[in-house]
Amino acid sequence: METHSTSGSAPLTATTMDYQLTLDKVLANAEIVHGAQQIVTRRPDGGTFRYTFRDMAERARRLAASLIDAGIKPGDRVASLMWNNSAHLEAYYGVPIAGGILHTVNVRFHPEEIAYVLGDAQSRFLIVDDVLLPLWRDVPGGCAPERVIVHNFSGAGHTGEDYESFLADEPCPDLPELTSERAGATLCYTGGTTGRPKGVVYSHRALVLHALCEMSSAAFGYGVTDCVLPAVPMFHVNAWGIPYSTLMSGAKLVLPGQNLDGQSLLDLARDEGVTFLAGVPTIWSQFLDGLEARPDHGLSPDLRILTGGAAPHRSLIEGLARHGIPMFQGWGMTETSGVVTVSRLKPEIAKDAAVRVSTLGKQGLPLPIAQVRLAPIETQDEGGQCIGSIEVRGTSVTGAYLNNLKPEKWTEDGWFRTGDIGSIDAHGYLSVLEREEDLIKSGGEWIAPRDLEDAILEFPWITGCAVVGRKDIKWGERPVAFVVLSDKPPDDWSTICERLAALFPKY
Amino acid sequence: METHSTSGSAPLTATTMDYQLTLDKVLANAEIVHGAQQIVTRRPDGGTFRYTFRDMAERARRLAASLIDAGIKPGDRVASLMWNNSAHLEAYYGVPIAGGILHTVNVRFHPEEIAYVLGDAQSRFLIVDDVLLPLWRDVPGGCAPERVIVHNFSGAGHTGEDYESFLADEPCPDLPELTSERAGATLCYTGGTTGRPKGVVYSHRALVLHALCEMSSAAFGYGVTDCVLPAVPMFHVNAWGIPYSTLMSGAKLVLPGQNLDGQSLLDLARDEGVTFLAGVPTIWSQFLDGLEARPDHGLSPDLRILTGGAAPHRSLIEGLARHGIPMFQGWGMTETSGVVTVSRLKPEIAKDAAVRVSTLGKQGLPLPIAQVRLAPIETQDEGGQCIGSIEVRGTSVTGAYLNNLKPEKWTEDGWFRTGDIGSIDAHGYLSVLEREEDLIKSGGEWIAPRDLEDAILEFPWITGCAVVGRKDIKWGERPVAFVVLSDKPPDDWSTICERLAALFPKY
Repeated sequence: METHSTSGSAPLTATTMDYQLTLDKVLANAEIVHGAQQIVTRRPDGGTFRYTFRDMAERARRLAASLIDAGIKPGDRVASLMWNNSAHLEAYYGVPIAGGILHTVNVRFHPEEIAYVLGDAQSRFLIVDDVLLPLWRDVPGGCAPERVIVHNFSGAGHTGEDYESFLADEPCPDLPELTSERAGATLCYTGGTTGRPKGVVYSHRALVLHALCEMSSAAFGYGVTDCVLPAVPMFHVNAWGIPYSTLMSGAKLVLPGQNLDGQSLLDLARDEGVTFLAGVPTIWSQFLDGLEARPDHGLSPDLRILTGGAAPHRSLIEGLARHGIPMFQGWGMTETSGVVTVSRLKPEIAKDAAVRVSTLGKQGLPLPIAQVRLAPIETQDEGGQCIGSIEVRGTSVTGAYLNNLKPEKWTEDGWFRTGDIGSIDAHGYLSVLEREEDLIKSGGEWIAPRDLEDAILEFPWITGCAVVGRKDIKWGERPVAFVVLSDKPPDDWSTICERLAALFPKY
Repeated sequence: METHSTSGSAPLTATTMDYQLTLDKVLANAEIVHGAQQIVTRRPDGGTFRYTFRDMAERARRLAASLIDAGIKPGDRVASLMWNNSAHLEAYYGVPIAGGILHTVNVRFHPEEIAYVLGDAQSRFLIVDDVLLPLWRDVPGGCAPERVIVHNFSGAGHTGEDYESFLADEPCPDLPELTSERAGATLCYTGGTTGRPKGVVYSHRALVLHALCEMSSAAFGYGVTDCVLPAVPMFHVNAWGIPYSTLMSGAKLVLPGQNLDGQSLLDLARDEGVTFLAGVPTIWSQFLDGLEARPDHGLSPDLRILTGGAAPHRSLIEGLARHGIPMFQGWGMTETSGVVTVSRLKPEIAKDAAVRVSTLGKQGLPLPIAQVRLAPIETQDEGGQCIGSIEVRGTSVTGAYLNNLKPEKWTEDGWFRTGDIGSIDAHGYLSVLEREEDLIKSGGEWIAPRDLEDAILEFPWITGCAVVGRKDIKWGERPVAFVVLSDKPPDDWSTICERLAALFPKY
């Protein structure tokens, strides 16, 4: 509780109580307010396992009790090498409420990288799905966790220390309430396209507020009547925060296990009455193929799809719309806990079909407690609209990398430099155009490869395209397009050059 | 930015940036992200004034500049004696971003009480609607603000210092960013049914997080496609937070001025395409009367009504439902910044019409970052369901009253004792049954007057009822019912006694 006074000249401060935003309270409320709500996991054998928020909360507290018993200290790391399943969810809550930090290891990392991040994070324990044991055996030793606990996800049995045996018989009766929302709760590493993966430690506050933003009308807006399936892996940026926002909102949660392909998701979404799907565009292209093959799909009429990780192509948005499924987009990074912008449509935009689709293709509007700005760069796009280097800040944005790597990624006034080039339209929608390093500088002018790619992809006989910069003595760099042809390419290629000449300046 | 380290035994803390939840950022985002959205005010003469979020933000910053120029210091109070209008909204933002605390004075207080709260708060400035000058003139002097600024709301002109002249010509160019989310932003006084009004100072954090909760699916869930009309006065618990959550969500905001009666609201809601109304049940009874008289009302098909302040009668919920307007309920207090629970329906409840209506009559489920518990009292209700004294805590709940009045209202572990008796059903819905002091203790057993009142009101020839405790030598207290009869009372009163004898134990 804060002090206040009206006497003398001391300023009057707020009387608001000190209530820390920590995950133990989120778990308690999920259990008390939405205890009977379901969590469904698809097993590797295609069967399903289901239990309630109440069951999950009890097991998360048993996990916390075991970890404390095993000697976990505040801030200690517990790593997971797991798919989207109920045990991983238990770790999402159980590790942080024990005071630890859950380090979700990306199973798509190279075994050398996995060894690197485990060592960098000094993770003391590891929980691994049995189906990922082959990967784990490929990870070079040297920084091995003290204990490796195996989750018998497949049901086939294993010879390691079993997760069920590790779980304490009883939830810790006197688990102390967490005292600081600024403490670390989870840890992810960036994909590391440039150099080594870099760690980001999310505070309880960052996760809780990000989840609360997701529940808002500005973002995902799901609630007690919804059924949510995160097809984004739980080792990827906290599955965009969905394992927290679903428990906070009381929505039913469906975890697809390791089956993240479009056809499996289509079946699972139909069987469980899913109303909200989230994942990368590639998945939804497969999903759309499945729909085209079976128009009487039996999906919930309330289903909508969030995509992120890459911009969806217009044909995907329009294809899903033909089946009555709205798609919208979120944009974020490992460094931002999940989404920063969401492409929710303002009414003046929703009215016009063409503007509607083009705006859904943009990355969207900043969430209520995040800010986005553009730092000027040396060019403007064709319409005179400013483009610039995207900088963000907010309650859920990281202010550093672990071990203070790359401090130059933050501005002097504390904004994170995303390294993406973008523009903001008159309605406030952000478009992420390009990675800064992908821009091509030709004769002193900047060229955005993606603009060229989009134009080239408009030709029906081109099904894939990548534009890169080639070193050039005269121009510095020149754009070069690599294309994938359909099975019906034309004889005459000159149309494409004419079209591009009409759309782009000569440089 | 927080420090972190992996060296030695120091615990790893989060790398999340320090981003303070302050209203200057809310205002900046409202302007940048939703700048063209409209704010509409109904004037006393029935006309409307409209401008945009961008216009409002600029004027709020001009007000802040004027206040700083006038010598406002951090934490200084600026009082408002105003209805729901655009100038009051400017003060909602302009005073806090200048570092001050907006003290919204309840125009329904007795002039003596107004003098008391102005003195208790030591408010240095007062902004008053010209239409409230007659009330202001009745307020006894002695603790007069240094400057009284008159908002020419009626357009009729006045002889005081004018709000428009007070506003600086330009927004303060170098308004410093606020540095503490824990600083006070607004101040309200409790209604004071028991003793003197008590002050509650809301922090920036309390207001921002409450507004964010309101935007969630668990509460109001409105967004860019909505049009919101708060019929709860802006001097009453920050108008339940709506002036903040609308600007954060990008919803159109309609301010009804001083015309808070049902018929005026019906006209305004139709004219502006309102989709979300909020106010006390009395207003909606009038509103329903208006609907019955004019079934082709032309209201938005998306309209829903939030009510609070008192439980709505079942006939009101059902009456509005007949016109296709869903009503739901929020519950909160001055001490909680706005709502703590909202009666959002879980799907298993929505299915059954009878359960649906009875659950809508309850106060609802706690918001995601608030907690509610019952402290046991010496009785149980008829169904064996536990009832108890309601205690709450959360990010937006006060931890003290101004000047530390009544410290006994907080438990040792920091929960606020609401003083209400309630129960929580198997689905987690809170029912507020009674004020603690209203319970009747008869022969050692507790009797809840409201249960008796509800039963008596089931008789069609009784239109009003109040049950109170009468001192009794034998029983301690005995319940006595006062009733209002319809114009067709029956000859035989014995049915009512038989009915009550069947429903309640003899004591």
